[in-house]
Amino acid sequence: MTKRICILGSTGSIGCQAIDVAKMLGIKVVGLSAYQNVEKLIQQAKDLNPEIICIGDESYYSILKQQFPDKIVVAGHKGLVEVATYQDADLIVNALVGISGLIPTIEAIKSGKKVALANKETLVVGGEVIKKMVKEKVGGWQDQILIPVDSEHSAILQCLVGEDKKNVKRIILTASGGPFRGKKLEELKNVTIEDVLSHPTWHMGKKITVDSATLINKGFEVIEAMFFFDKKVDEIDVVIHPQSIIHSMVEFVDGSIKAQISNPDMRLAIEYSLTYPQRGMCLIEPLDFSKLKQLTFEEPDFDTFFLLKLTYECAKEGGSYPVVLNAANEEAVKFFLEGEITFVDIMTYVKKVVERHKPQQINSVEDILEVDKIARFELKKLVEGEL
Amino acid sequence: MTKRICILGSTGSIGCQAIDVAKMLGIKVVGLSAYQNVEKLIQQAKDLNPEIICIGDESYYSILKQQFPDKIVVAGHKGLVEVATYQDADLIVNALVGISGLIPTIEAIKSGKKVALANKETLVVGGEVIKKMVKEKVGGWQDQILIPVDSEHSAILQCLVGEDKKNVKRIILTASGGPFRGKKLEELKNVTIEDVLSHPTWHMGKKITVDSATLINKGFEVIEAMFFFDKKVDEIDVVIHPQSIIHSMVEFVDGSIKAQISNPDMRLAIEYSLTYPQRGMCLIEPLDFSKLKQLTFEEPDFDTFFLLKLTYECAKEGGSYPVVLNAANEEAVKFFLEGEITFVDIMTYVKKVVERHKPQQINSVEDILEVDKIARFELKKLVEGEL
Repeated sequence: MTKRICILGSTGSIGCQAIDVAKMLGIKVVGLSAYQNVEKLIQQAKDLNPEIICIGDESYYSILKQQFPDKIVVAGHKGLVEVATYQDADLIVNALVGISGLIPTIEAIKSGKKVALANKETLVVGGEVIKKMVKEKVGGWQDQILIPVDSEHSAILQCLVGEDKKNVKRIILTASGGPFRGKKLEELKNVTIEDVLSHPTWHMGKKITVDSATLINKGFEVIEAMFFFDKKVDEIDVVIHPQSIIHSMVEFVDGSIKAQISNPDMRLAIEYSLTYPQRGMCLIEPLDFSKLKQLTFEEPDFDTFFLLKLTYECAKEGGSYPVVLNAANEEAVKFFLEGEITFVDIMTYVKKVVERHKPQQINSVEDILEVDKIARFELKKLVEGEL
Repeated sequence: MTKRICILGSTGSIGCQAIDVAKMLGIKVVGLSAYQNVEKLIQQAKDLNPEIICIGDESYYSILKQQFPDKIVVAGHKGLVEVATYQDADLIVNALVGISGLIPTIEAIKSGKKVALANKETLVVGGEVIKKMVKEKVGGWQDQILIPVDSEHSAILQCLVGEDKKNVKRIILTASGGPFRGKKLEELKNVTIEDVLSHPTWHMGKKITVDSATLINKGFEVIEAMFFFDKKVDEIDVVIHPQSIIHSMVEFVDGSIKAQISNPDMRLAIEYSLTYPQRGMCLIEPLDFSKLKQLTFEEPDFDTFFLLKLTYECAKEGGSYPVVLNAANEEAVKFFLEGEITFVDIMTYVKKVVERHKPQQINSVEDILEVDKIARFELKKLVEGEL
């Protein structure tokens, strides 16, 4: 079992829960990183006594160093990579938000760490590059190097334990459907930020909550599943399951389906990423079937939530398309959370940027970052009415 | 994978389906046995060209031998054991009904065969004896020797693949609830044989369909699960799930639950018992979640279906109790199907026989058969008003 971990993005929702889980399991947190929330980071560091601490925003460096004069205190992108490759850790929990998670994952793998991956963008934009890298490193796709933290991918990993991967016919990702399930595009025109942030079953960070409302988050999970489990995009289906009790499923060649089930609580998936392939103590409220009453299922509404459909198309195209999709979406969500654009604008603008994109070859992280930059620029121009 | 099998009880519901599955998988059926349905047995033997054929009722021996003068044709209990231990088979499908399945299972294991076990009574009455025998034979409880055919136990086996058995916290057996789910004892007084035989989700033989209506069948499955998966009776729960889509579940120490799901079709579980731990082609209609709509769950009504409660008590006591329970039930069901007693009588009489029973040590098959005989006699006396 994992003994010493670093947590990237430790002050976010997943980061804080990862700390709780590590404490319960008796796992030592040797490294922490946060972007701007220096107050919470200091508090966590006092509690956990890590060996290395990183603040993303370099302007907070001196405050942090002053608090911990005897510890390794680092800052900025370079500092983040130092935590991701910290020699005395054996696993890195990557709970960063956005494309900033990409390079730390790559550097952690290069330095021989296991990575518990909560950062979606790593595989959405870097899947092909990372897949190639892992293959070169371990001669194949290795679930011992990259372990999912998302409840959906954790569910799939659990369903695959002990099964021959060639017997997998289809992966079925479940989706709650978000706060606007059942609504039509017309009805989404006037939704507020508060409406968007009221997720019915999961309490998460703002970015992922918005992505869950447009369903692009589920699309990103489809792309992640392709890389985690070495599947083609048309072998991955999405089914709406509003209760978020079945976290995902795997269908095998004989027609048998295995599902992983629990009350919706991220601590289970976080724990499994730290104990895999073993299992640890119960940190969640066990499911009581007699109180559960019913589980329901429906098909996604690809017309209203057209970013999910668009994600499938981008995943099928591969190359630079998922990079553009992600970059445009990241920027659009920012504008939305700042009150600059409406909820429907997120979807419309992202779609426009993707449609305008001319595909490019992606052979390196540099290629990814270049495409990413241009797509963000395009989105901004659209919002500013310059396109 | 299994290449050559014998099917005991080949003219019954599971037997016929096992033949279909074997043909689809290209598995050679080298032995067949039936109890009385000589016509169907002859037809099956002409179709499959087995090497050994057995008819349980010896009065049909000459008819059968006449049809197949060049084959090994055997009869009676001794003949059944010959098929169960047939040297050129590597797996025996035991689809016998009732306690007659016990000795063939034991002899098959002794002769080094794997047994795909559809016969419930083998483990209900002989669990302790067989467990000891298997432990002596392979130095532990071996799922490579006894493979479940029941959809519930097949589901559990599938959920356990690749998992450390010490991480299993609880087994959750699902039950459709049978045709009388939601009814109270008072409402069951006038049900007819036709009512009892109208199972809502599974089409099975008559005996098991009656047992499903009283829920004693689910109780038997609890006892089987104890022996298949080396669990205590209080680690096995029953949850009513009327749609019979989730075939059973396993809860692990971390609170994660794994479930196996498919349309209700015995061919999947039969196939898995023949291909385990691999998987074969899809012989069933794949599940369409968008057509599924909902899955529901409720607690069993232990007051109305008190034989389920009684089975838990008998399982807890162990020893001769499950033997008495099974014997009394087998006789009571016979009387019911012959129109001699009512549906509620089955439950009442079985309970009375169990309550009157004085526990005995069970150390051998002979002990089992002795207790079995006395319990049947007691049940008869009760029905005939002599007790």
